[in-house]
Amino acid sequence: MNKSIIVLIATIAFFSCSTAQKTLEKSTTGTSDIKKSMIKALEWQEAHPIFAIAPTDWTEGAYYTGVTRAHKATKDMMYMAALKNQAYWNNWQTFDRLHHADDVAISYSYLYIDINDGRRNFVDLEPTKKFLDAHLFENDEWKAGADKSDMGKTILWWWCDALFMAPPVLNLYAKHTNQPKYLEEMHKFYMETYNQLYDKEERLFARDMRFVWTGSDKDQKEPNGKKIFWSRGNGWVIAGLALLLEDMPKDYENRPFYENLFKEMSTRILELQPSDGLWRTSLLCPETYDHGEVSGSGFYTFAIAWGINNGLVDKKHIPAVKKAWNALAKCQHEDGRVGWVQNIGAFPEPATADSWQNFGTGAFLMAGSEVIQLLD
Amino acid sequence: MNKSIIVLIATIAFFSCSTAQKTLEKSTTGTSDIKKSMIKALEWQEAHPIFAIAPTDWTEGAYYTGVTRAHKATKDMMYMAALKNQAYWNNWQTFDRLHHADDVAISYSYLYIDINDGRRNFVDLEPTKKFLDAHLFENDEWKAGADKSDMGKTILWWWCDALFMAPPVLNLYAKHTNQPKYLEEMHKFYMETYNQLYDKEERLFARDMRFVWTGSDKDQKEPNGKKIFWSRGNGWVIAGLALLLEDMPKDYENRPFYENLFKEMSTRILELQPSDGLWRTSLLCPETYDHGEVSGSGFYTFAIAWGINNGLVDKKHIPAVKKAWNALAKCQHEDGRVGWVQNIGAFPEPATADSWQNFGTGAFLMAGSEVIQLLD
Amino acid sequence: MNKSIIVLIATIAFFSCSTAQKTLEKSTTGTSDIKKSMIKALEWQEAHPIFAIAPTDWTEGAYYTGVTRAHKATKDMMYMAALKNQAYWNNWQTFDRLHHADDVAISYSYLYIDINDGRRNFVDLEPTKKFLDAHLFENDEWKAGADKSDMGKTILWWWCDALFMAPPVLNLYAKHTNQPKYLEEMHKFYMETYNQLYDKEERLFARDMRFVWTGSDKDQKEPNGKKIFWSRGNGWVIAGLALLLEDMPKDYENRPFYENLFKEMSTRILELQPSDGLWRTSLLCPETYDHGEVSGSGFYTFAIAWGINNGLVDKKHIPAVKKAWNALAKCQHEDGRVGWVQNIGAFPEPATADSWQNFGTGAFLMAGSEVIQLLD
Repeated sequence: MNKSIIVLIATIAFFSCSTAQKTLEKSTTGTSDIKKSMIKALEWQEAHPIFAIAPTDWTEGAYYTGVTRAHKATKDMMYMAALKNQAYWNNWQTFDRLHHADDVAISYSYLYIDINDGRRNFVDLEPTKKFLDAHLFENDEWKAGADKSDMGKTILWWWCDALFMAPPVLNLYAKHTNQPKYLEEMHKFYMETYNQLYDKEERLFARDMRFVWTGSDKDQKEPNGKKIFWSRGNGWVIAGLALLLEDMPKDYENRPFYENLFKEMSTRILELQPSDGLWRTSLLCPETYDHGEVSGSGFYTFAIAWGINNGLVDKKHIPAVKKAWNALAKCQHEDGRVGWVQNIGAFPEPATADSWQNFGTGAFLMAGSEVIQLLD
Repeated sequence: MNKSIIVLIATIAFFSCSTAQKTLEKSTTGTSDIKKSMIKALEWQEAHPIFAIAPTDWTEGAYYTGVTRAHKATKDMMYMAALKNQAYWNNWQTFDRLHHADDVAISYSYLYIDINDGRRNFVDLEPTKKFLDAHLFENDEWKAGADKSDMGKTILWWWCDALFMAPPVLNLYAKHTNQPKYLEEMHKFYMETYNQLYDKEERLFARDMRFVWTGSDKDQKEPNGKKIFWSRGNGWVIAGLALLLEDMPKDYENRPFYENLFKEMSTRILELQPSDGLWRTSLLCPETYDHGEVSGSGFYTFAIAWGINNGLVDKKHIPAVKKAWNALAKCQHEDGRVGWVQNIGAFPEPATADSWQNFGTGAFLMAGSEVIQLLD
Repeated sequence: MNKSIIVLIATIAFFSCSTAQKTLEKSTTGTSDIKKSMIKALEWQEAHPIFAIAPTDWTEGAYYTGVTRAHKATKDMMYMAALKNQAYWNNWQTFDRLHHADDVAISYSYLYIDINDGRRNFVDLEPTKKFLDAHLFENDEWKAGADKSDMGKTILWWWCDALFMAPPVLNLYAKHTNQPKYLEEMHKFYMETYNQLYDKEERLFARDMRFVWTGSDKDQKEPNGKKIFWSRGNGWVIAGLALLLEDMPKDYENRPFYENLFKEMSTRILELQPSDGLWRTSLLCPETYDHGEVSGSGFYTFAIAWGINNGLVDKKHIPAVKKAWNALAKCQHEDGRVGWVQNIGAFPEPATADSWQNFGTGAFLMAGSEVIQLLD
């Protein structure tokens, strides 16, 4: 075959490559690519509304918290349009169990809109205030400590996910309305959870009391004999810590506690990062479900990148963050869907390329929003 | 390089460009392809909400019944997300004419969610119960038989479409709440319709009394002199029968009536299948609008495949079902839209490649959901 | 030719197949292409809901007015589905400031549905009537003329955008309900605005009193020393005039005033058209932001094409309209988004390829709907 024919054919093949898209290896290092991935994730998620029990529940709360971060990082008004749209149709309501941290997570987005949209008489923070006051100051079954189950529902925030759901809202509400008492109360309950669920040796949170070892033969173990530390559960905590630290007064007396906890966990999470960049759903027993999981990994990527951007994590970890983001980006389908998200749960379970959830998209957006700033 | 080679390459390049997706012959035989077509249909329909008078009306009722079947067959949670989303925003309401079978069709989806989502305090079946009680037990103009029009509104379900709208809801409600009286009452009204509209000779339902021959010169006829049997109208009946039989107690005394009717109609519908697989909008006068119509054909494909899957239709008809599905799949646009759907109506009218309706998408999903099981 | 070459070429051709679409230069001259562009614009906008303060506000009002025009021109029921969907979820409400013209713009779509959908007991015009009566007949701060700001809020419609927001609704309401008093009242307030803001020399409207020259040194000027005439502001007026004239009685005594104003402005706008077809955001100082802006240009294209279609603008201007449309079509992204739309504002500001707003999509749809009729 004639050489010039080969060249010509090669040329045709090259130009026909716009074809590509589907198969072209995505370059994810530039912020422009990250922004495109994020917008596609938003568009897909908005086109596929999902919730557990209501559009004001924690799944939407976590998702729209991700949308606030994406807006903050990019100023793309598509994010603000989505935020306002959900808030309007949700009529600025929390979900309805006032003792349950999950049900106020959505208020983080309402606060963000109030602070950033700048339209008078638009945001209604009354339902949020009503929730927070009842949540902090009214009695309930959990605070009463009457629970006899093995989950340890004897404190307000008895499961570690709660540290993402309520504390950042309380902290931001305190700042926005200039009422430090909400922060102070937050700290009180935070310490209860920390004391109950934080494993100082492993520097990780048990999801709830079922996973805290007591020395009994009945203690739950992974197949490899280790403790069960759930990736997303710790993701909730460390992402929540980054959110907290961002809006916590620099001179707040308990700020060092949160900074130290954040640093401790960041270091540990970095130690545990698998070589392909994405954390497994069980942190100490990665071999059980040996594939990256996006919700936990997204929260870790967000938190660590935030730590670097804010001087709490060493810049030497930038490559780890880039590796994580590149791996996260590969979990996104061509149409924007963020896959490899473990479904709603409370302990390690597997995900698939197709498994998705709004909070997984939220974690993805949170990760991207800080990685952009890391690269800028 | 030889000139003719250049020309050839240019020609290939040119033609390969327009190729484009649209004309690529879809392989529709595998269940994986069917599942993809179904998800695309759902995504397109969710992005193009439509209703006649409200999102709780029969058009949405039929569509979301299709979504329940798709979820049941595939367990893809995208269907459940869509079901819950509409139900939440519809606040579990029926539409508001309590004597009108159309207005309770949406409750089939509410019942499905209650049975399958398993979340306590989520589904509100009170509006459905209120509707059903009024529908069955309160007097109204139609039951009173005072109507003097030619449509024969002298029984509760005076048009054959009604047999899809209300009976499956009553049957499933009876089963789910363990109250056989709803099934018994259903049967009473079903028989009235059967007696009024079923043509035992043709083994098809007239849409309403306008199309029942009386021997008068004024009897409505097709151009070829035959009776007018509307494809979608009979689709409503036979698809409704499959839904009924699925949840009707095996030992229910009147079950044999429904099984026989289902078999009789299935046989007749199969006899009438055009060679390209899709039924025309006028069953006995296919030449009037000589193109396949998707809503009627989708319901037939669903019903006959269900019959095979459940032992009521002989397996020798599997090729007919496959042919029907392959032809249905070709009516779907590249972007997911299900075309060739006759618009809202009450007798044979033409469709086009572009004409769509949510209930047509529902019929498509119902068909796909049973064909998957047939092939598995 | 060598067999292996043929195989290789065939292979290339096969893989290059999906290329297509993205790079193919769009031909925008045919009505079929315009219709496709319009549907894509609708689909994108429906998938990206946005509003300033509520889905009943003027941004949605302008967008859905565009959707009514698209439906009127094409009869594609996708437009009617979108219209009914928003109206249903907005519960036929206006927005809530009864003295503010912006807040009744959405009612144009409600009136259109009532006139064209033909479903009894569906449209609720009570909120519109309540608004219009309060708007016209109740006192308020603006009518009282007590405003001391430089914006001149001393008349009901003190900014020129208002002439799009309320007058077409009043005019259509008067026609639809056969109550000429709404038209008569409209005229009274229209004249106030005309007298306050219309620059007879420039044949353009100042946006509000800040931009009306008084002879003082403090008069606002463009860098080139000329008056500030905002493209979108004049777009609101002239598009509103076309809407008004379409439904204003032919024998209405003040109709000549509106016809003359329409002709005067059309001529002026045509004089000012830049050579690439699209108007700049500052009409008399195009060099400040030297790029086409889509919301103003869309309204102009709509109005002038409407004028040609209705005998008020000479057919010799058809090429100018075609040029404008072709340039507008190039502002649409591949996914349907209409870019180059100046964001919410009150005077000339720049746009970008990515900047979008629902009212920009509305202007695009209005333009396309008349250009289709021009070409037919």
